[in-house]
Amino acid sequence: MTNIREISQDWKITLIGAGNVGFHLGKKLYESRYEIVQVFSRDKKNSEKLAEQIQASPINSLEKLLPSADLYIISVPDDAIETVIKTLSVNKSLKNKLFVHTSGNTPSRVFKSHFSRYGIFYPLQSFSKQKTPDFKRIPICVDASKEEDLQILKSIASSISENLYQLSDAQRSIVHVAAVFANNFTNYLYQISADILEKENLSFDILKPLIEETACKIKEQNPREVQTGPAIRGDVGSIKKHLAYLQNFPEYASIYRMLTFGVNPDIPGLENET
Amino acid sequence: MTNIREISQDWKITLIGAGNVGFHLGKKLYESRYEIVQVFSRDKKNSEKLAEQIQASPINSLEKLLPSADLYIISVPDDAIETVIKTLSVNKSLKNKLFVHTSGNTPSRVFKSHFSRYGIFYPLQSFSKQKTPDFKRIPICVDASKEEDLQILKSIASSISENLYQLSDAQRSIVHVAAVFANNFTNYLYQISADILEKENLSFDILKPLIEETACKIKEQNPREVQTGPAIRGDVGSIKKHLAYLQNFPEYASIYRMLTFGVNPDIPGLENET
Repeated sequence: MTNIREISQDWKITLIGAGNVGFHLGKKLYESRYEIVQVFSRDKKNSEKLAEQIQASPINSLEKLLPSADLYIISVPDDAIETVIKTLSVNKSLKNKLFVHTSGNTPSRVFKSHFSRYGIFYPLQSFSKQKTPDFKRIPICVDASKEEDLQILKSIASSISENLYQLSDAQRSIVHVAAVFANNFTNYLYQISADILEKENLSFDILKPLIEETACKIKEQNPREVQTGPAIRGDVGSIKKHLAYLQNFPEYASIYRMLTFGVNPDIPGLENET
Repeated sequence: MTNIREISQDWKITLIGAGNVGFHLGKKLYESRYEIVQVFSRDKKNSEKLAEQIQASPINSLEKLLPSADLYIISVPDDAIETVIKTLSVNKSLKNKLFVHTSGNTPSRVFKSHFSRYGIFYPLQSFSKQKTPDFKRIPICVDASKEEDLQILKSIASSISENLYQLSDAQRSIVHVAAVFANNFTNYLYQISADILEKENLSFDILKPLIEETACKIKEQNPREVQTGPAIRGDVGSIKKHLAYLQNFPEYASIYRMLTFGVNPDIPGLENET
């Protein structure tokens, strides 16, 4: 493993995509002493901004990609990955390079008919430009078509994070579905609660400590064991009061009913209403 | 205000209920130098455990309540509050005392026909026995039937928390509905994601940093502005993949559809499927 670590430390990396993932990943790899050769973005400002911070060359056309890197990390929007790969495959000098993408929901087979060495380097976190993430704790999900490349990717991943997973395509896409519930839909529930409060001129701030505590609790305990509230208690009185209030918000009332029934299918009278 | 603070510091408090709320609130009030006279719980072990830690007398029958306290804090389950109040109202020596309950969803009128001095002391947090809460940040929602009592309650609340709100019954019950979305339903989404992962022998740990980040983001930003994921992007490809996978979990598929449609009603084809 020392050997692999030494080899991987010498690897040169080129970043294809300078959005939120590319930006933070690029900066972290640079901080971890990797040499970054080029940064590609269709958006000149994005490639220049990132390239400047990590001593790389910005490019805005994939034709300008140099074959001097060992690893090419593709972090473009999901629906652009295949097009980017096809464009890259035309460049014969890149034929034997290692390519990875950073997407949670794109199978590695997008590479298969174009390259022999490919893999996944998926950091499971929601990045925003403004905020520097704590990479050490971010799960990095890797996979590769060849064992040697897998070892290299694991080595690179473990130099930026303590949280390494090897996942197959199937496993990664399951994690991605689960993340939609835990992240995207959760944020939507925050949005609903903010909206309900706002309509009554109440500040969303009042819920923030509760939201934090709810997210904190499941670090140590199974969410099933810490479920609280009217639904799990079977508190039909509170539920009816809430539904009466939510008549002003018919979509939220439907969501309330469905989630209440999900938490506790035995609440009398609720099933007929869904 | 100094005056009120001095008066309120001399107030003696009796706790009716030693569940999660009563337990932590009692300990915090004691730490803040309030004298706790008695702790009532139907469960002998609960009253004794708490009473011992806060130098109070444990009692297991409401008939044993002494009139020597100034404030009686009722933190029993919502559906027991009215019964407790009726029982207390029989005791003539308590007639002029101040009574409050700690419920988010019970109107203060439960007191009205029995007592003239009453109010609310609702800490908006989800307590668990194992974990000592950081009271300083917990919003305490107060209200009272009389102005002097309101001032006293505010003073007591501000001696344990920096986060004080005066809310009417109507406002408090709206906050309570919003909290069901932000806390109870959010925890249920965590449960769904844990369940999906578990069925595939994947560890829920992989999602914990993402869950934490999602809850963290809304401290500074409006949840509407930080919504991410396939729904808001209108990424129909990912959504169809997810729904195909969720055929194994029909209830979760329905929830996925409804919440996706909630996030983005313009996703083609989804409306017909709900």
